[in-house]
Amino acid sequence: MSRIITFIGKAGIGQTTLAIATAKWFSQQGKEVLFVTHNPSPNAEILLQTPLTHISQVVAPNLQAVQLQVTTMLDQTWEEVKKLLSLYIPIPDSEEIYSGELILLPGFDSFLYFNAMRQYYQSGEYEVIVYDSRGDLETLRMLGIPGMLDWYFQRFGKIFEGFSLHKIADSIGGPIASAIVSANVDAEKLQQGVDQVRSWIAEGIAVVGDTSKLTSYLVTSNEMGAIAETRWLWGSAQQINLTVNGVLAYQCQEDGNLTDLHQAFTPLSVTPIPALHEHNWNPLLKALPDFNDNHRSPLPLKIDLESRQLFVFLPGFTKKQVKLTQYGKELTVEAGEQRRNIFLPPDLQKLSIKAGKFEEPYLIVAFEEKQE
Amino acid sequence: MSRIITFIGKAGIGQTTLAIATAKWFSQQGKEVLFVTHNPSPNAEILLQTPLTHISQVVAPNLQAVQLQVTTMLDQTWEEVKKLLSLYIPIPDSEEIYSGELILLPGFDSFLYFNAMRQYYQSGEYEVIVYDSRGDLETLRMLGIPGMLDWYFQRFGKIFEGFSLHKIADSIGGPIASAIVSANVDAEKLQQGVDQVRSWIAEGIAVVGDTSKLTSYLVTSNEMGAIAETRWLWGSAQQINLTVNGVLAYQCQEDGNLTDLHQAFTPLSVTPIPALHEHNWNPLLKALPDFNDNHRSPLPLKIDLESRQLFVFLPGFTKKQVKLTQYGKELTVEAGEQRRNIFLPPDLQKLSIKAGKFEEPYLIVAFEEKQE
Repeated sequence: MSRIITFIGKAGIGQTTLAIATAKWFSQQGKEVLFVTHNPSPNAEILLQTPLTHISQVVAPNLQAVQLQVTTMLDQTWEEVKKLLSLYIPIPDSEEIYSGELILLPGFDSFLYFNAMRQYYQSGEYEVIVYDSRGDLETLRMLGIPGMLDWYFQRFGKIFEGFSLHKIADSIGGPIASAIVSANVDAEKLQQGVDQVRSWIAEGIAVVGDTSKLTSYLVTSNEMGAIAETRWLWGSAQQINLTVNGVLAYQCQEDGNLTDLHQAFTPLSVTPIPALHEHNWNPLLKALPDFNDNHRSPLPLKIDLESRQLFVFLPGFTKKQVKLTQYGKELTVEAGEQRRNIFLPPDLQKLSIKAGKFEEPYLIVAFEEKQE
Repeated sequence: MSRIITFIGKAGIGQTTLAIATAKWFSQQGKEVLFVTHNPSPNAEILLQTPLTHISQVVAPNLQAVQLQVTTMLDQTWEEVKKLLSLYIPIPDSEEIYSGELILLPGFDSFLYFNAMRQYYQSGEYEVIVYDSRGDLETLRMLGIPGMLDWYFQRFGKIFEGFSLHKIADSIGGPIASAIVSANVDAEKLQQGVDQVRSWIAEGIAVVGDTSKLTSYLVTSNEMGAIAETRWLWGSAQQINLTVNGVLAYQCQEDGNLTDLHQAFTPLSVTPIPALHEHNWNPLLKALPDFNDNHRSPLPLKIDLESRQLFVFLPGFTKKQVKLTQYGKELTVEAGEQRRNIFLPPDLQKLSIKAGKFEEPYLIVAFEEKQE
């Protein structure tokens, strides 16, 4: 079974360095490791002292490395999309859009990265995949894709279920009505495609929610701004249901003053890692925590059915920054430029909220005892 | 007239600090300044020693500051979108999607930031807008939105022009054909919407391409990794037709050894800026370049019709990283995880390419003298 390790934290602190150290750590244990960087900058290449391409290559025993290239991924995906489109839209040959022309719009990157990581993970070729992501909110949005899509499917799907083709036809009226009703849409083929995507979504949600499959560490320095931003990202990670396993304090000494760090990230364990000097990775490898030891970290969401209480773990936020709303069967928690929609378990769906209070670091939602 | 100043460079080097210094620089000159940060992290707030919200507030004489909030922007935009959709799709009240539920998918942020910046710029309320962006490839993709959308409109629009409604109807056949033909689509209203968007796109392209309207500076430190990444971003900026005006070398001393920096960024002027200490901004303000002096910087694209040559400025890339393709009337330049489609001027459209060579930092494309 594959597992993915990734890092979250303020940019420029040394995430790529620690990702490479982590990849080396596992490969020295004899694990088959893939180091994936999506940073198109030369940073990983300088650190690995090897040019990287979009095809994975062996850079050390048991260690392969690949630099994701969005343009290449876009080309491959476009061919798939075109095949699918051509089933429905007749595109004249003279006007063909070549994949090589396509320009990347914002957000394309994240979906392509997500898809690439999904493929590496599902290939089963690697025991450990170390993912050197950007480690910021955009990375969290990327890891949150399965959850987000699931919500969009459920919510918008309900609308479309709501009105059948016949109803749409009626509301439009006229000759188009009967035409739609008798149109020959290949519903089965369409449904197969949708089912495939939905099964990926379900697996994605399972991976993100399971620390033995996706392990994430915070990366910070001992500097105030870095601590504040990393704490904020820690809270943001909860919004996509990602459990954070610990903190790597880069460029810090074991005997340094780490009081602020420990305080900021309680109850996570904080591991000081010395700076990399002249490509000597050994001090870093020795300092790294045991990634095979699954620390117990606070879960992003805990539901206590007996006391009818919901505990949403939201470190790094203040009361002012957290907003709670109830829409029908779901609770929406807004914090850190993200929204999380929690579908309530059936037992709680029909109860009304008695109290919602933020007791740092938990948002606690209590439900009335009796049914409305 | 408004102008926008923004910064590009490796994250974590001090872009937010320099953006705030720049905002202070202009406000001390009596200009009406808006500082816009889209970083949801607490960094700007710590530096400004003021909590920021999504509503602009006065933080110093002539200086307002605002922190863009994507969730708020999403809510506002959703109301607009819903109004538009309701013209075409009947959504039952019971299944209404509330803006407060909507989850942000990757890419949404960039479009919302872009839209917010467009509104601030077009409001004409501010003489200078200092935009503390993320300063990375995603920011370039954001600033590139007008150019990208323009290409998508032109290319895909051509396909849709290609087949009229009647042709689509024919290819589908059956009763749906006559239905489509006689369907009552409010074509005029639709066209008005499209025209509005296209005029925004045209203005956006004009702003990005004019250094008096959008001025950008690179931010780097004197460290090798930072220089390499910032150079790469410099080249990437050319791909969205963004002229870079100069380099701010943060945490550098005037008398320090800046040889590497000067060499890496020739012919741009490199301005060393001392580090910020204990909220004393004066040394930084004194060191900043004169933003009113419009340095002459290399243009991203130069076309010499007489010699039938195209010069694409691409610093920071090697020959291996640059790819040139011709598709009909356009040239596609691929470099740095980006594509730029250059629509050829009519005089060159019918000529075939004689040579395309990369002579650092220019990609030079020469066309045959005679028509094919």
